[in-house]
Amino acid sequence: MTYVQDDNTIFVGNKPVMNYVLAVVTQFTSGAQEVSVKARGKAISRAVDTTEIALNRFLQNVEKKSVMTSTELVDTEDGKTNVSSIEIVLSIRQDTA
Amino acid sequence: MTYVQDDNTIFVGNKPVMNYVLAVVTQFTSGAQEVSVKARGKAISRAVDTTEIALNRFLQNVEKKSVMTSTELVDTEDGKTNVSSIEIVLSIRQDTA
Repeated sequence: MTYVQDDNTIFVGNKPVMNYVLAVVTQFTSGAQEVSVKARGKAISRAVDTTEIALNRFLQNVEKKSVMTSTELVDTEDGKTNVSSIEIVLSIRQDTA
Repeated sequence: MTYVQDDNTIFVGNKPVMNYVLAVVTQFTSGAQEVSVKARGKAISRAVDTTEIALNRFLQNVEKKSVMTSTELVDTEDGKTNVSSIEIVLSIRQDTA
C-alpha cells in the first residue's frame, strides 16, 4: 500500500479507518516487531482510532509503546503553517514474544 | 468555565481551539502544577492543537508529562459504542520550578 514506508511507518490520512487498521495488521503479520502510526491535523483522531481498533480487535500480542505529539511546519498555498502531529508506536509485547 | 473540573481537567469539545488554550493557560497562571487535557472522537485533534499552541506560544515553563490514548464505551441513541479518547497531561517543568 502506498501509505506504508520501508521502515514500518503508516501515515493516516482521509481514507476509511479500516484501510489503516488493515495496513497495521498486515505489517505485524508480515513479521514487523514495531509499527509507527503517524498523522497530522484532523487525521490525528483517525490515527488514534486506527491503533485502538487494531489493538482491541486484531492484535492481542501488541501493545502501545509510546504516544508522542508535536508541531510540524508545513508548506501550503498561503505559506508555511504550523500543524499538530501525532506518532503512536506499536510493538510486539515482550512478555509474549 | 464549564469545561474545567475541580481537578484541573479540561475537556476539549467543538468550540474554537483558542477557548481551550485560554483555559489551559488560565489554570497554570492560577497556580496549577499540572493540567490534564482530555478529548474524545473527532475532538482529539483539537486537544493536540490545544496543548501544542499552549506550550509553544504561551507556557515556556510547562512540558508534556504524558500522552495516553484509550477506548471508552459511550451511550448513544443507538446503544453503546466505542469511542477513542486521549489524555495529555501538562506539568510545570521541574528544572525551572
